[in-house]
Amino acid sequence: ISSGDAARLGRLLDQLHPADIADLMEQVGDKTRHLLLRFWGRDIDGEILSELDESVRQEVIEMLPDDVLSEAVLDLESDDIVDILEDMEEDKKGVVLDALPASERVAVEQALGYPEFSAGRMMQREVVTAPEYWNVGQAIDYLREESENLPEQFYHVILVDPRMRPTGYVTLGKLLSTPRETPMRDATEHSFRTVPVDQDESEVAYAFNQYHLISVPVVDANDRLVGVITIDDAMAVLDDEHEEDMLRLAGVTEESSLSDTAIETTKLRLPWLAVNLATAILASLVIALFEGAIGEIVALAVLMPIVASMGGNAGTQSLTVAVRAIATKDLTGSNVWRVVGRELLVGLLNGLFFAIVMGIVALLWFGSTQLGLVIALAMVVNLAVAALAGILVPVMMEKLGVDPALASGTFVTTVTDVVGFFAFLGLAAVVLL
Amino acid sequence: ISSGDAARLGRLLDQLHPADIADLMEQVGDKTRHLLLRFWGRDIDGEILSELDESVRQEVIEMLPDDVLSEAVLDLESDDIVDILEDMEEDKKGVVLDALPASERVAVEQALGYPEFSAGRMMQREVVTAPEYWNVGQAIDYLREESENLPEQFYHVILVDPRMRPTGYVTLGKLLSTPRETPMRDATEHSFRTVPVDQDESEVAYAFNQYHLISVPVVDANDRLVGVITIDDAMAVLDDEHEEDMLRLAGVTEESSLSDTAIETTKLRLPWLAVNLATAILASLVIALFEGAIGEIVALAVLMPIVASMGGNAGTQSLTVAVRAIATKDLTGSNVWRVVGRELLVGLLNGLFFAIVMGIVALLWFGSTQLGLVIALAMVVNLAVAALAGILVPVMMEKLGVDPALASGTFVTTVTDVVGFFAFLGLAAVVLL
Repeated sequence: ISSGDAARLGRLLDQLHPADIADLMEQVGDKTRHLLLRFWGRDIDGEILSELDESVRQEVIEMLPDDVLSEAVLDLESDDIVDILEDMEEDKKGVVLDALPASERVAVEQALGYPEFSAGRMMQREVVTAPEYWNVGQAIDYLREESENLPEQFYHVILVDPRMRPTGYVTLGKLLSTPRETPMRDATEHSFRTVPVDQDESEVAYAFNQYHLISVPVVDANDRLVGVITIDDAMAVLDDEHEEDMLRLAGVTEESSLSDTAIETTKLRLPWLAVNLATAILASLVIALFEGAIGEIVALAVLMPIVASMGGNAGTQSLTVAVRAIATKDLTGSNVWRVVGRELLVGLLNGLFFAIVMGIVALLWFGSTQLGLVIALAMVVNLAVAALAGILVPVMMEKLGVDPALASGTFVTTVTDVVGFFAFLGLAAVVLL
Repeated sequence: ISSGDAARLGRLLDQLHPADIADLMEQVGDKTRHLLLRFWGRDIDGEILSELDESVRQEVIEMLPDDVLSEAVLDLESDDIVDILEDMEEDKKGVVLDALPASERVAVEQALGYPEFSAGRMMQREVVTAPEYWNVGQAIDYLREESENLPEQFYHVILVDPRMRPTGYVTLGKLLSTPRETPMRDATEHSFRTVPVDQDESEVAYAFNQYHLISVPVVDANDRLVGVITIDDAMAVLDDEHEEDMLRLAGVTEESSLSDTAIETTKLRLPWLAVNLATAILASLVIALFEGAIGEIVALAVLMPIVASMGGNAGTQSLTVAVRAIATKDLTGSNVWRVVGRELLVGLLNGLFFAIVMGIVALLWFGSTQLGLVIALAMVVNLAVAALAGILVPVMMEKLGVDPALASGTFVTTVTDVVGFFAFLGLAAVVLL
């Protein structure tokens, strides 16, 4: 394809959805991407830019001539422009802002004034409103007159009072199926709710998912309408939040992408490995306490990772369920103690089961009843502790206002390693020596 | 609240959104839930049932008298009824089906005929269609006449040919803002695409997210329109899929919920712990190979968990990124080797860094240059292997048609444990003895 036939390339790409072209640009290597941009860059669409991953997008934007860039951005909705501008360098930002019509420029600059990850950044400012005293016929006639200025996608007509405070909304389906003389106020939806402009985007996405919303009006501190958030943006945020939780649980702090270079990726992953090294050394210090016992009975060294590993796994199970439940607000003050009690019981039950299994394995392997007893006891202790740590650590993080997905994993495995080694080697030192 | 004042309880609950009532019912204990149902159960709403978690829903349904149950279900859309019926016992299923009007009953039974987790189960059968030769005015008049029979939420009018094959759709916004005499065909959206009725629900959710769809027509094997899926259902599926991935990565196989009992939870978690026990014993067998070396130099037992733990963490980082990238289709045949190369490089770079750090720590701790050298070398080897395993294991699972999130974690940590212990103890046996 990159053999230089620019016309054919253009025809091929024209058939694709912008999101697929963006994926394609992310998946090809640096060199192919540069070639692609050289041959076809002038036709690039704003939609494609807004679909690209941040890191690739920056690279692409730097390669595009200013006039192409400003042209591409022109036909985007204000929320997508804001999204692109967020991570752009100052001089390029100026180029784009200058290209926008004055009114849109003000809108975009205002949006950039809201805190990152807030409803203000997510919303589009193009809204369709009607005074609350209108009837359905008036609203329909107004839409027909204003057809040039309507946003590309909208699902509700928002009713506002004279001070621009939203008081309800009417779905387009309802508008179409209601007699013209019906007051708009009588056609509004029960699901109506508004979102403050400074609300966190994850809260907004949660509300969409919980209440099956399609679009939601955004209001400022005086309850005045400033924009609207639609479900497709909420879905994208939900997707991002999930990704973040999953990566954070695995110790990948920042949002990373497959198109990052090896050096960038190494930098992202190194910090948590460093934390893990510190905690691993801590666990080793516990082992060092029992060097004497290990010197006498080498079987202890052979068996000790089993207790720690089982604890680590059980803790991660319990932790993941807890982190997820906190994110979906299923784990709250009202049921936390019941869930903690359940986790403890689960830990004890699993502990008991694997104590018996492992006790027998150790007995058969090393022919020592006492060794089997020691590892069985250590297993019960560690799986119970693992279950407790798995739920208590994220709950406490949440109380402290820290993202429970962020560092819980390391804390929990530190606890299970330290307790696992200490319980097993300590019991062994007491019973066997 | 559950002091017995049924009237006050009813008033309080009436103010809440069905989704919130469902959450409340999930969060309170068994006893409170029973009390709640006894006092207020007769007023229960179908919406609440459809918002409940499966396990709690089954319990609630069993407690409800047949007439209350069939009444509650009556005002739901067909996709929600299907959702509730899926997990119901046969006799209760009959009660609900008998209560439905004949036409709806057929529709629901047909939907239940589609495979679970397919588009056919997700879709609602209430569709709004228009012949493709109509103009905008005709469509609007039709909607006004049919206003009684329209679905509660709809976003498009789907154009169909005489054989009921969808050929395009028109958004309601477009319908409202386009002159009456315009042919419907000229007002259709570029984003139009259809979904086969047997497509997997995760594919459907992916398409919604990738192409910013709002609703999508579902077609049978003959391309005939059979239903429509809306974005709120796709969002719910996306949410579930994420939850599944996250839990599976942590070794919690089935969908679990906080309202499960301790016994149920134990059963869900035990299998993966058992697999982990087997792999931990495998790692112990590797250690046992070097019992002699450990007997002579106990420091080896103290340090060996560090190498294994660092490998496990690095592998999990690499694995999580890969699983996520496979789910979002960002990791495909065209870039897999480049990403594998990058992961290997990342593993080597991190390995080098921690080799130096840990080599120095070991040297200072045990005063042996050779021991420092051995642990440094083992660290590089294990972090490189961890990075490779983290990406190759899920990619191979995907090729084999197994969910990469399902068992990858255990495989990867088995590899890093075995390689970690083997590299460290093996090198130590060669260099130090």
